[in-house]
Order: sequence, then C-alpha cells, then structure tokens
Amino acid sequence: MNTNKYFTYKFLLVFAVVVAFQPAASGAAFDFENGNAPVEVIIPRVIPAIFQSVSPTASDATLVLRITTLITNSWFDAIAPYHPTAVGVYSDLERQEAGQATNSNRNTAVLYASYRVLNSLLPNHKADWEGMLTSVGLDPDDDQENTTTAIGIGNLAGNAVVANREHDGMNQLGDEGGRTYNRVPYADYLGYQPVNTAYVLRNPSRWQPNIVSAGNGIFHVQQFVTPQLRVTMPYSFDNPNRFHAPVPTSSNVKHRKAYKQQADEVLAASAGLSDLQKMTAELFDNKLASLGFSALFASQTNGLSLEGFIQYDFLTNLAAFDTAIAVWNEKYRYDAVRPFSAIRYLYGNRPVTAWGGPGKGAVNDLPASEWRSYLNTADHPEYPSGSASFCAAHAQASRRFLGSDNLGWVVPRSKGSSVIEPGITPAGDIELEFDTWSTFEEECGLSRLRGGVHFMASIPAGQNLGRTIGDLAYAFITSHINGIAP
Amino acid sequence: MNTNKYFTYKFLLVFAVVVAFQPAASGAAFDFENGNAPVEVIIPRVIPAIFQSVSPTASDATLVLRITTLITNSWFDAIAPYHPTAVGVYSDLERQEAGQATNSNRNTAVLYASYRVLNSLLPNHKADWEGMLTSVGLDPDDDQENTTTAIGIGNLAGNAVVANREHDGMNQLGDEGGRTYNRVPYADYLGYQPVNTAYVLRNPSRWQPNIVSAGNGIFHVQQFVTPQLRVTMPYSFDNPNRFHAPVPTSSNVKHRKAYKQQADEVLAASAGLSDLQKMTAELFDNKLASLGFSALFASQTNGLSLEGFIQYDFLTNLAAFDTAIAVWNEKYRYDAVRPFSAIRYLYGNRPVTAWGGPGKGAVNDLPASEWRSYLNTADHPEYPSGSASFCAAHAQASRRFLGSDNLGWVVPRSKGSSVIEPGITPAGDIELEFDTWSTFEEECGLSRLRGGVHFMASIPAGQNLGRTIGDLAYAFITSHINGIAP
Repeated sequence: MNTNKYFTYKFLLVFAVVVAFQPAASGAAFDFENGNAPVEVIIPRVIPAIFQSVSPTASDATLVLRITTLITNSWFDAIAPYHPTAVGVYSDLERQEAGQATNSNRNTAVLYASYRVLNSLLPNHKADWEGMLTSVGLDPDDDQENTTTAIGIGNLAGNAVVANREHDGMNQLGDEGGRTYNRVPYADYLGYQPVNTAYVLRNPSRWQPNIVSAGNGIFHVQQFVTPQLRVTMPYSFDNPNRFHAPVPTSSNVKHRKAYKQQADEVLAASAGLSDLQKMTAELFDNKLASLGFSALFASQTNGLSLEGFIQYDFLTNLAAFDTAIAVWNEKYRYDAVRPFSAIRYLYGNRPVTAWGGPGKGAVNDLPASEWRSYLNTADHPEYPSGSASFCAAHAQASRRFLGSDNLGWVVPRSKGSSVIEPGITPAGDIELEFDTWSTFEEECGLSRLRGGVHFMASIPAGQNLGRTIGDLAYAFITSHINGIAP
Repeated sequence: MNTNKYFTYKFLLVFAVVVAFQPAASGAAFDFENGNAPVEVIIPRVIPAIFQSVSPTASDATLVLRITTLITNSWFDAIAPYHPTAVGVYSDLERQEAGQATNSNRNTAVLYASYRVLNSLLPNHKADWEGMLTSVGLDPDDDQENTTTAIGIGNLAGNAVVANREHDGMNQLGDEGGRTYNRVPYADYLGYQPVNTAYVLRNPSRWQPNIVSAGNGIFHVQQFVTPQLRVTMPYSFDNPNRFHAPVPTSSNVKHRKAYKQQADEVLAASAGLSDLQKMTAELFDNKLASLGFSALFASQTNGLSLEGFIQYDFLTNLAAFDTAIAVWNEKYRYDAVRPFSAIRYLYGNRPVTAWGGPGKGAVNDLPASEWRSYLNTADHPEYPSGSASFCAAHAQASRRFLGSDNLGWVVPRSKGSSVIEPGITPAGDIELEFDTWSTFEEECGLSRLRGGVHFMASIPAGQNLGRTIGDLAYAFITSHINGIAP
C-alpha cells in the first residue's frame, strides 16, 4: 500500500471524528461547562499524531492501544476527585466538594492530565500538545500540583500515570535491560528470535516473518512487534499466565490433514470475498475506526455524560489492552504459523483458487506462491487472533457498562473507498451494519479469516480470552468507581 | 529518525533547487526559448515524488539513480535530432534541419520525453506528470509520433527509453521470474539470502541485516536492496564481471588482527567526529543533495547551454548508474560484514570509546553493543562502498566533460540543521567547501568511514571502480554525441 492511500484514509478518519462530534468551529471558544474536551479537543489532536508517528493505518494494535489506554486512564483519574466515590488508578486525590463537581473542572483537569501523559508518550509532538492547551486558553507552563484546583488535579493525575507506566514493561523509554546509550523505545529486550527466516520455512508449524514493502523497491523483513507485551503490567489481573488458549493443534504440521484443511478454509474464504466482507475486513483492521469510533458512537446514542463517557472510554481501552497482554503471552507461547506460509508450504507454485490480488476477483490459476492475504499480514505470530480478542473484550465491556447488547451502528462506505482496491471496491455505496455488540464481535472475528490473516481456530480462541478479560476490566472499573479498589 | 525530520529535509532541498535556479514564478509562463525545462519544470516535480514514493532521504541510491538516469537518458535522446551529429541511446531519430535546432523545440521534446518515462517509472504520480505539462501549456494527451515535430520527437524518444528499460533486469514491473499475480516491483527474483540473521552472526565475515525502526515501536529487519542490479543492463559496458575489487581480506575474521584493526579504525573515526565531518557525511548520504546538486552547480558555473547541460547531466547519472551495477556485482560476490556487526562481535558489551549517539559526543564507556553508526547503515553488504564509487564516477565524468578538476562548490549549513543531531549540530553556521572534484571525491569517500558505515578498504575499492567507469561513461556519451555509437 502506498503513502497516498494511508494519507487519504487518515484524513477521512479525522474528518469523520470532526463531523460526528461537531467540535467548536475554528476560532470559536471551547465551552468548558457544556463541551467534551476529550472528544472536541484531545482526540482530534491525538489521532493525527498516532497516524503520523506510530501507525500509519492504526493497525499496530499493541502500540496504539497502550497510548489510548494511558490517555483515557489519565482522564479517569483526573475526574475521580469530582465523583462521590471514585478513586483513580494511580492517584488517590483529595475528594472535592460537591459544588466543585462541574464539567468545567472536569474538562480542565482532563486537559492537563492528557498534556502530561502525551508529553511522555509522544514527546516529538510537544508543540501539538502545547497547542492543545493554548487553543482553549490554558497555559502549558502551569505545572501546579494544588490538590484543590482542576489544574493541579489534572497535573497530579497525569503525572501519576506517567510515573507508574513509563516502566510498565513495554520499554517506552528504551532503557529496559540496562541500556544506557542509543536507547530504542519499545525495543524487545527479552530476545525473541523466530525459528524461521523470511526465506526458509524450517518449521512449517511456527511463525515466519513476512517480507514487506511500500512498493518502492525497498523491502523489509518483519520483526515480532512488542513481544515484551507479555511481561507488561496489566490493569485488571496480576499475571497473564492464568489465561490459556487451547493448543492450536491444526497448526501443527504433523496433523497434516487438519493443517491442510484450515489452510484450504482460508483460500476458500479468499475466493469468496464479497464487497461487504472486504470493507468489513478493512474496518476492523483499523483499531481507531472500529474500536474507537464504535465507542464514541455508543457514548452518543446512550447519552453518556462527560463523566460517563470517560469511564466507558477508559473501560473499553483497558479491556482491549489487558486482553492484548494475555493474547501476546499466548502468541509468544505458540509462535504459530500464518496462512501465507502454510499455503506456500502446502502448494508451492501449484495453482489454487483464491482472490487474485487488487482488482482481480477470484481466479482459479493462481500459483499458491503468488497468493496474498486481502489484509496485510501483521508482524506477530498467528494464534490467537488479536483483533478477534480485542473486539470481544470491547463488546463484552460495552455490554456490561451500557447494560445492553444493542448497538445500532451503521458505517457508510462510499463506492471505491477501499484502501486495498481503491476506485474499485465497493462497486457502489454500501453500509456496514452492526445492530448489536454480538454482531460487531462476530463480524470482527470472521473478518480476520476472510482477510486471509488468520485460521478459523484463532477466532474463538481470541474471542474467549477477550470476553473473559472484558468482564475483569468491568469489575476493575466498577471497583474504582465505587471506591473499593485495593 | 522520524518523519518530521525527513519532511524538513525534503522541503529544504526542494527549496534549495528553487532558490538556486530561480524558476518562473508561480503563474508566470515558462520561457521555452530562454528557459531550461529540466531545471525549472521537471526536476522540481521529480524530487518531491522521489522523496515521497521512493526514498524519504534519497539515500537509496540504486533506486534513485535508475530513475534519474532514465529521465536524463530521455532528455539526451529527445534533443539528439537537433544536434549536428548526436544519436540517441534508444532512438535514432530523423535529424532535424538546423533552423529547427531551437531551445523551444528542445524544451518541448524534453518535456514530452520526460512525461513518457515518468509515467512508466512513477505511475502513481500520474497527476503530477500531467500537471508538469499543463503548467507550461502542453497537452498530456498529445501522443503523436511525428518525426518532424518536437512533440513527436519527445514522445518517440521517451517511449523508446521505456520500451528498452522496462525489462532491463531491475524488475521494475515485478514480472521477472514469470510472476503473473500480485507483482511486486523491484523484488529480488534471483533468490539472495543472507547467511546471517539479524539475531545471530553465524559468520562474522559476512553481511548481517540490521534491525531498523522509525522510532515508533515497529521494527524491521533489512533485506539486501535490489541484488538484481548485478544483472541489470549497463550503458557503457557489456558485463560487470570485467571489473574486480580486490578481495577484502581484512573483513575475513580469520585475519583476526586486520579484522580488529579495521573495526578499531571505524570506532576511532566515530570518536573523533567534528561538526564539519558530521555535516559532510550527511551531505553525501543524500544522493540528490550531493551528486545532483553539484552537477547543477557545475552546469551553472560552466555556463552550459541547455544542450550541454542535458549531455552533462545524463553523463553523470549514467556514470553512477553503471558504477552501481559493477559495485552491486562485487557487493553480492563478497557479501561483506558491516562495521556495526564486527564491532559487536569483537567487543560485545565491553566499553569502547566512540560517538555516544545524538547529542552525546565522544564517550569512553559505551558498551560496544550499544554503538551505532552516525549515518544509518544501508541495506546492502559493505564492500565496496557504493557512495565512494558514485562520487568518484561523478567526479571523473565531470572532470572529463568539463575539462577541469575545478569545482568551487560551497554548501552552507546553518546552525543546528543536522538531521541526525537536529538543533545541536553544527554548533554554528558552517560551509562545506569543495574546491575541486578531487576534494569532492575524497571527502565523499572518507565520509563513509567517519559515518561508521564502511571500513577504510571499501573506499579506494569503490573509488577505483567509479573512476574506471566514469571514463567509460564519458566515452559512451562522446560516441553518442559524435554519432559514432555502435
């Protein structure tokens, strides 16, 4: 995929946020009492920074999720003192008098908390974060830690998140493993090495890094993204080793029949791709467009207050983040082969029937070695599906918090708006409909099979982990809202 | 390095072109008779496209050089019919009457020739190339091949370059090796595999792909860029096997003392880096800023006519391109280790004295495993130095064509303008001075040692190949100007 497409997509997404939430027009003052700073001021600045500096397609889930979780964490902690019972995750600040529990104070505290966290997470965007505050008339240099002012509360809440999370295991600062010079943020310091190279599939059961290119003649080999997530500190449980996905027996090449059967299932799904399936796969490949926007939508339709929105947004983010920790632990444990490797191994240059690449539709003379997955295959082992697990965690947390499975989310996609088949797919304007969170969760999971990046067994395995941890995340947030956190 | 820096650098470069050559102000008409379409119309559009779609730092020499060589080839061929004796490389067009040999005709022919070549090389920038013609009042849809009009001559010359170069061995279309589906442009179709992985240096004499990151938490492993360049069709000789660089004996770990000595030399150079050396290294790492801009400068100071400029620009490009073919043949043959691997192998975590990373200066307690080269280490085996060879070919071709070693090029670099140490280096405004082509060639070569990406032996080895092929390139262009090409 080329840069132009990324940028088009980026601007579409940012535009969607802006349209959906009608922030104050440029120049108009932000309404501290009736407005929603996260939606109107913070998110519109964070999304472009993530696209520019972290993940051009927002498909790099572990990195994106940690950022969104830490930001929403700071929001939750910043408004806790204005709630009758809530306590922050990383700060237990002086409870404010009821008369102080205004949205003006909440918005102010949330803005300063975000400012502290964003300067830690994305320091190269310092000017953006200063602009975030000055755009609403706040002073970036006000670093007071007064426990009775919104500014002080925001600073305290944000600084506490930073202090507790800069060494949470993800190696944000690049200094884990005792590194002093030339620190490399988020580098793996635990020494994962793939058993296969991009060139030779020594063990057809195990993960093989793929060769990737931006189409410009420069090629790279994948490296397992953030394998250290497995030792990163979760919110809602102590140790990811308590969760187990079933052994992926069909990915063991010794079970030849099952190994071939699950690869054939991927090819059949690839051959049968409809426009609706393609666009659904693209939606769920983008974690901001799927997880982020569905949460924003549900907040609106449920008429959540500023406080409710913040609690819910933090909940869904921490549910997916904690799920990612457990899923990465299992990905590391099983180190399982991706479909593209298995298909090449099984069929070599022999013809298969499958999607023939952008604009080709299904073809029956495709050398298996020339097959590609509809979605780009991500840079981590296959089992279990991360996306299926995140969607399930998100859906379960949403069902719990909102008290209903109803969703009613309709995502319009205009003719030719595909990023994989631009100008071609979909053939006409279509709508992706998600009546319930169950549908959202189910379609998300299946989209990973159809997109060619997962075998079927990965989907329920991921969903089961996600639902379990979605429940734990809800218990975690509830205990913090009720002030009975340990 | 992050994207912001790339973009800053990009705009500085484009700005430099614009300032240096004062093209027609926006809205003002291009002067076909007195103007220079390559400099005023074509180059300012090609450079941003290369930065965007090929190489964000213009350091990916093989891909950049092939593009600039094919474009300048099309210029040479498009104006040959207006010369008393010249013949094109890929078209032998009807010689035009002397009265037709106007710069208006040459500029028109060059613009259409470029249009044809650019649509083949960078088809995703189609709108840019259309705009290139319409901006000067020409019709992109005029595909006449009339042998007596400038438009027809330009189209014929450009189309001939495309026809002869789309399958020149570089795999521009991604169909080499018989690939039908999901073609991958510029993919290696000859099956190079490194003997080392990024994780294990099995053979310390041989190339090890490096792990690279944009600093965002996503890591990749290098893949040897365009190893198929070794079988790509050269201009000025038949087969690169006629050229040999001496065996790099010091890169053979069995010669332990020499192996360590040449690694220590890299560390010493790293420890001794001055601001001038750092900025010189950055200049020569960027092939457009060094090779491209020095040629533009020399064209100006030598008062070259439009015709002379085109001949010279094609000459310097083909000299470097042909040199790249010979150098890549040797890089593939020797597959030699880079300094970063040898230094880690020799010293492990033991402290060394060297540059300690951006802003650190020289330090004496740097664990060797944390050393990095000042310049990013490129994605191909070490020996011989490509950059040293390109600069030597460029200098030799320039000396021959311009009849003198004099250059007199001064490159100002403002305080803090480094891309590796932004805001820090240089400490004050400085000027990089290249009085002669010999100085240019020598400083370029040494900058690769100082930049930490090459051992010393690579530099003369590359320079010798470059000077030899610079001479051949000059013979090639002379024979085509004189019309005695085979």
